[in-house]
Amino acid sequence: MYAVKVSKFHFSKERENMCKTSVLSVPSIKAPFEKTTIERRELRPDDVLIDIKFSGICHSDIHSVHGEWGEGIFPMVPGHEIAGVVAAVGAGVTKFAVGERVGVGCFVDSCGTCEYCLKGEEQYCMKGVVQTYNALDYDGNPTYGGYSQKIVVTERFVVRIPDGLELDVASPLLCAGITTYSPLKHWKVGPGKKVAILGVGGLGHLAIQYAHALGAEVTVLSRSMDKKSEALGFGADQYFATSDPGTFKALAGRFDLILNTVSANLNVDAYLSLLRVDGTLVNVGAPGTPDQYNAFSLLMGRRSIAGTLVGGIQETQEMLDFSAEHSITPQIEVIRADQVDEAYDRVLRSDVRYRFVIDVSTL
Amino acid sequence: MYAVKVSKFHFSKERENMCKTSVLSVPSIKAPFEKTTIERRELRPDDVLIDIKFSGICHSDIHSVHGEWGEGIFPMVPGHEIAGVVAAVGAGVTKFAVGERVGVGCFVDSCGTCEYCLKGEEQYCMKGVVQTYNALDYDGNPTYGGYSQKIVVTERFVVRIPDGLELDVASPLLCAGITTYSPLKHWKVGPGKKVAILGVGGLGHLAIQYAHALGAEVTVLSRSMDKKSEALGFGADQYFATSDPGTFKALAGRFDLILNTVSANLNVDAYLSLLRVDGTLVNVGAPGTPDQYNAFSLLMGRRSIAGTLVGGIQETQEMLDFSAEHSITPQIEVIRADQVDEAYDRVLRSDVRYRFVIDVSTL
Repeated sequence: MYAVKVSKFHFSKERENMCKTSVLSVPSIKAPFEKTTIERRELRPDDVLIDIKFSGICHSDIHSVHGEWGEGIFPMVPGHEIAGVVAAVGAGVTKFAVGERVGVGCFVDSCGTCEYCLKGEEQYCMKGVVQTYNALDYDGNPTYGGYSQKIVVTERFVVRIPDGLELDVASPLLCAGITTYSPLKHWKVGPGKKVAILGVGGLGHLAIQYAHALGAEVTVLSRSMDKKSEALGFGADQYFATSDPGTFKALAGRFDLILNTVSANLNVDAYLSLLRVDGTLVNVGAPGTPDQYNAFSLLMGRRSIAGTLVGGIQETQEMLDFSAEHSITPQIEVIRADQVDEAYDRVLRSDVRYRFVIDVSTL
Repeated sequence: MYAVKVSKFHFSKERENMCKTSVLSVPSIKAPFEKTTIERRELRPDDVLIDIKFSGICHSDIHSVHGEWGEGIFPMVPGHEIAGVVAAVGAGVTKFAVGERVGVGCFVDSCGTCEYCLKGEEQYCMKGVVQTYNALDYDGNPTYGGYSQKIVVTERFVVRIPDGLELDVASPLLCAGITTYSPLKHWKVGPGKKVAILGVGGLGHLAIQYAHALGAEVTVLSRSMDKKSEALGFGADQYFATSDPGTFKALAGRFDLILNTVSANLNVDAYLSLLRVDGTLVNVGAPGTPDQYNAFSLLMGRRSIAGTLVGGIQETQEMLDFSAEHSITPQIEVIRADQVDEAYDRVLRSDVRYRFVIDVSTL
């Protein structure tokens, strides 16, 4: 997170070659959205200009706008679940042509030379990955995200949206999809593995689908029984309510992996007790305050608590292709640009099944 | 831990065939040791009677005697670092003959049929492993440990002490050795890996030797600089004091593995910051109160916090053979039986370099 404050939008000297675009912008912490205009940079040789069609709303957008993950760079244009169509390409672009359907996720640049970039795990770039918004690009300019009609991104950070995935449902995959797909692959979820998905929300409802498609036995753990039929519809084999203490007895020592999609403090020891020997509790979100664990909960079964952060570009492409192949899509509610403030309130009340997507044509 | 109270030593009906032995026993929580006599069971076909020569003092003995890990079964005869010589064998014993040098570690039975027993990881037996003392054996009798002149153990839980390892230095390997060797092997420590050993005590001074012998780059993290020359002598490549905040800057993102041998609460996030991507902080001990972590510390580098518990019988044998081959031995102070209370006080003051071993002939 960057703690730099920028009082106004940045304009470079090459204004004449830049491209104006409408955006939804937040002028200061917790302020409502305003429709305004920014300029995207002139295309560099390796840049792609994208006409954004849909932009998903991620809970981390709200954390950022509310200044909960650092002071933030304002004005802020959130959005890192971007789906659109290539409108122009720089002279050196080889991967994409005008008219192709493409996506951009949580970051737009990395050093490209460190061991993690070379392995295709740009999210762990040693120089520090450049986030799609609320960050400073390597050239010192703030980045502005996908609540916008156009964006310019170097082709290395653009992925292809395969045929068979509509752009509206593709957009949340760029963050929520890769955030859940990547740990399932990293921890080798597949046939014979018992996986629990904790939480049925924007992340969880995709995680259920991926874990099922990968061939695992999928158990959903949710606070109440409310989402049972939906979870089974997404491919869950079983569903248990965590508000029932009997759940923790019934499932003791059962899972190879628990994917925790809930960004709230947990009774970590209770969840560790549900793991088999060598099992892992993986966090893909972070509550604002620390969690606690008793080391005995780890020792008694060589268990682990882990965390992961989205995935690399190559794996993001793999996830999109896998999603298309297995007809995995988020359940979305498409909204107009003037509904974003209300959508934020509804996300905070968990009143969304399961992801809001902004129709950028309404901007 | 078992919370069963047993008011006196158990005597079975087959007393006439049992074998009397002198022991050091604690009659009740925190009481001083008393020299007394118990009877070991009649040899079953698969049993080995061992004349104990040396018995190591483990910090967990103190936790048990002090009732810090549950109420405990008293009177208690601690000791799970046992080295001796086979004195007799049951009719069906095939692995051992009278006169052979053998050891017994932290447990003396397991179900033998669950998936973990079948994999040689008896410590995670699904029925529950039978601990060498302060536990109830599957026949319902309490187990009594190695502060004793004789012990009867089923051959499956007896290991061979290789030539080249004296019995006095071999005894601490049965717990302290396997507790550190097993995680280093499990997390694939070897050439090209950067390992930090946190704490230079009974466990740590062995962990340094194993990690070095396995070919890793070994960094020792200790509170002060006091043990630097000793740590380098054990094979450490580098040594840093954790009381110096500069240490955490200098070593940020450096280690594949941190083996935490300190059973005290830590600033977990600070240690996680020393890990590379996919690095693991492994706990082999447990403080009495929970530890805290911020999920971001895990997310930002796909890091893990884990724990492990000793090792299986097959791996314990491997560890002893490896120790003999690489001349890895603990640095010990041999004491008489009447010095055990004093030795406990000294362990609690960290006034031992690095392991007390009871000369059982003085009992």
